[in-house]
Amino acid sequence: MDDTVLPETQSPVSPAAATASPDARHDRMSAEARAEIRDMQDAAVPTKRPTVPALEEILYEPLPVLDHGFVRVVDYMGDDAAIVQAARVSYGRGTKRVQDDSGLIRYLMRHWHTTPFEMCEIKLHVKLPIFVARQWIRHRTANVNEYSARYSILDREFYLPAPEHLAAQSSANRQGRGAVLTPEEGDRVLALLRSDAEQTYANYEWMLNSGPEGEPADPARQGLARELARMNLTLNTYTQWYWKIDLHNFMHFLRLRADDHAQYEIRAYADVMMDVLDRWTPIAAGAFREYRLGAVQVSATGIQVVRRLLAGEAVTADTSGLSKREWRELMAALGRDPA
Amino acid sequence: MDDTVLPETQSPVSPAAATASPDARHDRMSAEARAEIRDMQDAAVPTKRPTVPALEEILYEPLPVLDHGFVRVVDYMGDDAAIVQAARVSYGRGTKRVQDDSGLIRYLMRHWHTTPFEMCEIKLHVKLPIFVARQWIRHRTANVNEYSARYSILDREFYLPAPEHLAAQSSANRQGRGAVLTPEEGDRVLALLRSDAEQTYANYEWMLNSGPEGEPADPARQGLARELARMNLTLNTYTQWYWKIDLHNFMHFLRLRADDHAQYEIRAYADVMMDVLDRWTPIAAGAFREYRLGAVQVSATGIQVVRRLLAGEAVTADTSGLSKREWRELMAALGRDPA
Amino acid sequence: MDDTVLPETQSPVSPAAATASPDARHDRMSAEARAEIRDMQDAAVPTKRPTVPALEEILYEPLPVLDHGFVRVVDYMGDDAAIVQAARVSYGRGTKRVQDDSGLIRYLMRHWHTTPFEMCEIKLHVKLPIFVARQWIRHRTANVNEYSARYSILDREFYLPAPEHLAAQSSANRQGRGAVLTPEEGDRVLALLRSDAEQTYANYEWMLNSGPEGEPADPARQGLARELARMNLTLNTYTQWYWKIDLHNFMHFLRLRADDHAQYEIRAYADVMMDVLDRWTPIAAGAFREYRLGAVQVSATGIQVVRRLLAGEAVTADTSGLSKREWRELMAALGRDPA
Amino acid sequence: MDDTVLPETQSPVSPAAATASPDARHDRMSAEARAEIRDMQDAAVPTKRPTVPALEEILYEPLPVLDHGFVRVVDYMGDDAAIVQAARVSYGRGTKRVQDDSGLIRYLMRHWHTTPFEMCEIKLHVKLPIFVARQWIRHRTANVNEYSARYSILDREFYLPAPEHLAAQSSANRQGRGAVLTPEEGDRVLALLRSDAEQTYANYEWMLNSGPEGEPADPARQGLARELARMNLTLNTYTQWYWKIDLHNFMHFLRLRADDHAQYEIRAYADVMMDVLDRWTPIAAGAFREYRLGAVQVSATGIQVVRRLLAGEAVTADTSGLSKREWRELMAALGRDPA
Repeated sequence: MDDTVLPETQSPVSPAAATASPDARHDRMSAEARAEIRDMQDAAVPTKRPTVPALEEILYEPLPVLDHGFVRVVDYMGDDAAIVQAARVSYGRGTKRVQDDSGLIRYLMRHWHTTPFEMCEIKLHVKLPIFVARQWIRHRTANVNEYSARYSILDREFYLPAPEHLAAQSSANRQGRGAVLTPEEGDRVLALLRSDAEQTYANYEWMLNSGPEGEPADPARQGLARELARMNLTLNTYTQWYWKIDLHNFMHFLRLRADDHAQYEIRAYADVMMDVLDRWTPIAAGAFREYRLGAVQVSATGIQVVRRLLAGEAVTADTSGLSKREWRELMAALGRDPA
Repeated sequence: MDDTVLPETQSPVSPAAATASPDARHDRMSAEARAEIRDMQDAAVPTKRPTVPALEEILYEPLPVLDHGFVRVVDYMGDDAAIVQAARVSYGRGTKRVQDDSGLIRYLMRHWHTTPFEMCEIKLHVKLPIFVARQWIRHRTANVNEYSARYSILDREFYLPAPEHLAAQSSANRQGRGAVLTPEEGDRVLALLRSDAEQTYANYEWMLNSGPEGEPADPARQGLARELARMNLTLNTYTQWYWKIDLHNFMHFLRLRADDHAQYEIRAYADVMMDVLDRWTPIAAGAFREYRLGAVQVSATGIQVVRRLLAGEAVTADTSGLSKREWRELMAALGRDPA
Repeated sequence: MDDTVLPETQSPVSPAAATASPDARHDRMSAEARAEIRDMQDAAVPTKRPTVPALEEILYEPLPVLDHGFVRVVDYMGDDAAIVQAARVSYGRGTKRVQDDSGLIRYLMRHWHTTPFEMCEIKLHVKLPIFVARQWIRHRTANVNEYSARYSILDREFYLPAPEHLAAQSSANRQGRGAVLTPEEGDRVLALLRSDAEQTYANYEWMLNSGPEGEPADPARQGLARELARMNLTLNTYTQWYWKIDLHNFMHFLRLRADDHAQYEIRAYADVMMDVLDRWTPIAAGAFREYRLGAVQVSATGIQVVRRLLAGEAVTADTSGLSKREWRELMAALGRDPA
Repeated sequence: MDDTVLPETQSPVSPAAATASPDARHDRMSAEARAEIRDMQDAAVPTKRPTVPALEEILYEPLPVLDHGFVRVVDYMGDDAAIVQAARVSYGRGTKRVQDDSGLIRYLMRHWHTTPFEMCEIKLHVKLPIFVARQWIRHRTANVNEYSARYSILDREFYLPAPEHLAAQSSANRQGRGAVLTPEEGDRVLALLRSDAEQTYANYEWMLNSGPEGEPADPARQGLARELARMNLTLNTYTQWYWKIDLHNFMHFLRLRADDHAQYEIRAYADVMMDVLDRWTPIAAGAFREYRLGAVQVSATGIQVVRRLLAGEAVTADTSGLSKREWRELMAALGRDPA
């Protein structure tokens, strides 16, 4: 729960990670990191634990997100059968037939029996902009170890949106995005974001006064403590962390963050994590789409509206008893014209 | 968070589990459960994940506790190196040298940097008396799936203490045990515990009116709902659950439950789990003994007492500024005569 | 997280609490407890904190549940306006107009913005049978202090269902209740529950060997330690605890426990707590009924069924794509004949 | 757990909050906010709940921290007597005598009986730099509502350290501060921090294109969405949140953050919160200083060293069995020369 701080033996992640290579997957880390990953991917050993071949395929692999970010699956515990096993508190694994496992998992999801899903766990290594990290960390049910800028120096990497993601403030929704900016305004915004990030990073480096081997860059200066210098960085600077969570809370995160209302930048991570979910626990993932992601929560008044419509009544927004916004949302869910 | 309830396909744990076999390990479950365990133990598959051979050795094996209970390690995630990896937020595993891993892990433990230890996870299947389960469940940081007596019928198994554990109320400590009961009183107590458990279980069965195949035992009766009949059972009836927890909270549990102040019956489980810890993360286990289990928290006033003693002052209970109980505890920690 | 244990000064709750008085409210505690409650109810002092007169009216008052249980509101923090204040991170309280507060609270509830509801907190003193306590404690997001049977002696009080609640096992639902037992079978069940509880309690007392003033009842015997003797009690014995929870998790508890699928005995507590909610935060309570309790979660396939029905198609269970049980539930929600 | 987002009725905290007044307490908020606070402070109503006059005195008052931050106590639940009441699960309040309450609270603290302390709760409104907020949020046991920069516009306020807090990186400790910078280097650092923060904020405002009444500042431009523009701000920008936590976790936070190893900027908040603790629960605060803040955790090997010293042995770092750093720390705790 405290800052993770380290004694003297640590070799921080190499600043070389900032050096891009041609391969989209591999330019997000140094050659050294790349080699370490390859070593782990080549070394399989036997285990008696539940194992998921489709997830083993992408284990340790950085899955690219945004311009410099990634999601890496670093470890996992359990599979679809482990959900069944926990629900039954049984000695063996799952049921005799895959179809029974599926029926039970869908039943559990539908009836909000959440504890069996908590019996699976996944651990990710994520690289993400700080402003995304600040939204993400609000999910308190995970374990987190973040790269410490008190202890180490952050890489010179910051998020710059692609032009199609530079959008105006929504006029309908105080927290959403509206139309994409005109090319002229978009270019000016992008230039500002880039130059401000570059300048504040350059000043961060100057304040640190840190040479390539850790010696002072300028021997005549003391250099500012890392824990202070970091305050000069902008919120689009990339950070990274290890993040571990159980399957129930993983899906809860995805329900909120793979949603249209979530900010695009965190949704980009959630979308990649949905693919991870499909590989890891395909049956639970299917149930999740059916009973959560694709489901609709209809309010008590909304259910009355549906009943009246089914009875042939010509219900309107005014006679529905719903607020205008609720009416529009219900009509959208029912595939009807709100007018 | 809700009761785990199951649709119709479940086959409950066989009542045959109550039938004892000669082998102490194997009499805690049915032949069928035994076969399921053997199947899983025989089937190793390759994984790229961190793997702990010493823990794989005992995977799925029921480790006996008390007269009918057990602890089974059902799954695990991570090892000592995973702690290091998370603390560094690094791409590869651990450090180059085991000695460095050890130094870092001890440093983290000593300075209460708890989050790297949260990056390992273990899942146990535990069979335990209900009154022990009620103490255990107070640790809220674990995931739990308990065998449901709303849905299934509990086995005819109850805890009966060995004669040497039948102790009188402590006169010094309102929540502790004192001397072992005399053989006469012990025998009478044991006879009462046994006959009350047998009688209430027999009436539980009668109320359920459930035949061997689930049909009514007496076709002329309806039989009471399981969720109601269970209230007639005594608190020494055995239940079982799946319990999953991260390494940090696992050690926190052990610190409180492997302690002398813990009730013997839960300490018996904690002792077995200490062995599991030693197999799983031996470096963290060593640090845990050094900085938690074997460490002493000396109060602000207590430290002054130690300083005064070191300076040669003849401090007594009266001049120490400590309460009598604190004085005794400090003298015990220092290996000195409290008088 | 540990057992709450106490040094020597504690005077345990008087066994006299078991002595019934004519008044339904007042027979659940001793005259001494009753006097203590009255003292607190008579002593109002000024505060600048948000205060809820409707809740102050019932503060400290035992609200009866089942045959010997109760719920007492012991303290609370916040009100409807505090939800608004937190959502806005504002300096003052709520909005200018109650109507705005209501609109915002309904919006937050509808869009699963849960954190503002976490800013209110309530503390209850609850007396409940142990088997109910075991369901209740599965909600891990609360703070709990339970009366310790290691340290103190439990009162001679146990739950005996009213005849109309003695139901048979449901044939349709493996975890539910079916028809009420015939008077003959019900009488026999009740007699067994009563006699077993009385006998095991009498033996508990005998094993404790504890006289009215704490001296041995029989000087020739040592008496069994409390932490052991308690294992002889049946699961319908009453216990009690202090239970503190935030408003969001309070409503989550009520959503699961005030539901038809919950066991009657815990639902009886949830029903009383719904009344407490109505007094405490009436606007949030209304939103909770509209968007949670009375709402229907329609699955992705279910929404397609509703669309097809609205388009005039004669959808049947077979052509719906839903399981039979899901079809029945959807038809019930829509007020239609499932056939 | 999701972002707190609000519909159209919200009036965001006025940008006028940035305008300083002469009074140190009052320059941290707008005149309007100031008036709202005064209104709440003047309006006392009767309550039967436990009330703490010493805390009521400072209720709602912004306690200044750093150059623009503050801590405001917004609400609280419970007092010292409530800890006792929960530990005893009693009907009335506390014990008959204050001395008994004190003995029990110290006992609970000393023996890590944490749940009674969880029965008190406090709610704070905090204004703090983003880089401090990122450390703070790692304590996951609190409820948080942060001011949303997706929805609203952040004020033009950023933390600039006082010259005496501009320190060099520590050479002994990779995460600490060493000597204060020379005036020349300090001045240059401060000038950079200020100009970068001002420039990035000015560009943030330009990108938003938001006029005083919310209309476009430049009608020819669309303006960038708030959720994107915020990424240009530096990490010393102030944010604010409501933060609610129970007494046990509040003290746990203080143990880690009022510690010498904590970064000065978060320690400044912890110091103010220690004063709040002293007002709120003075007995628990005293026990906390005695058994946590001022206590020393002596390792298993360390205890052997103390025993050997008391026995007159001339233990040295080399013969102690401790690492050099542990030796130094133990000698410091014992008030001895480490040489």
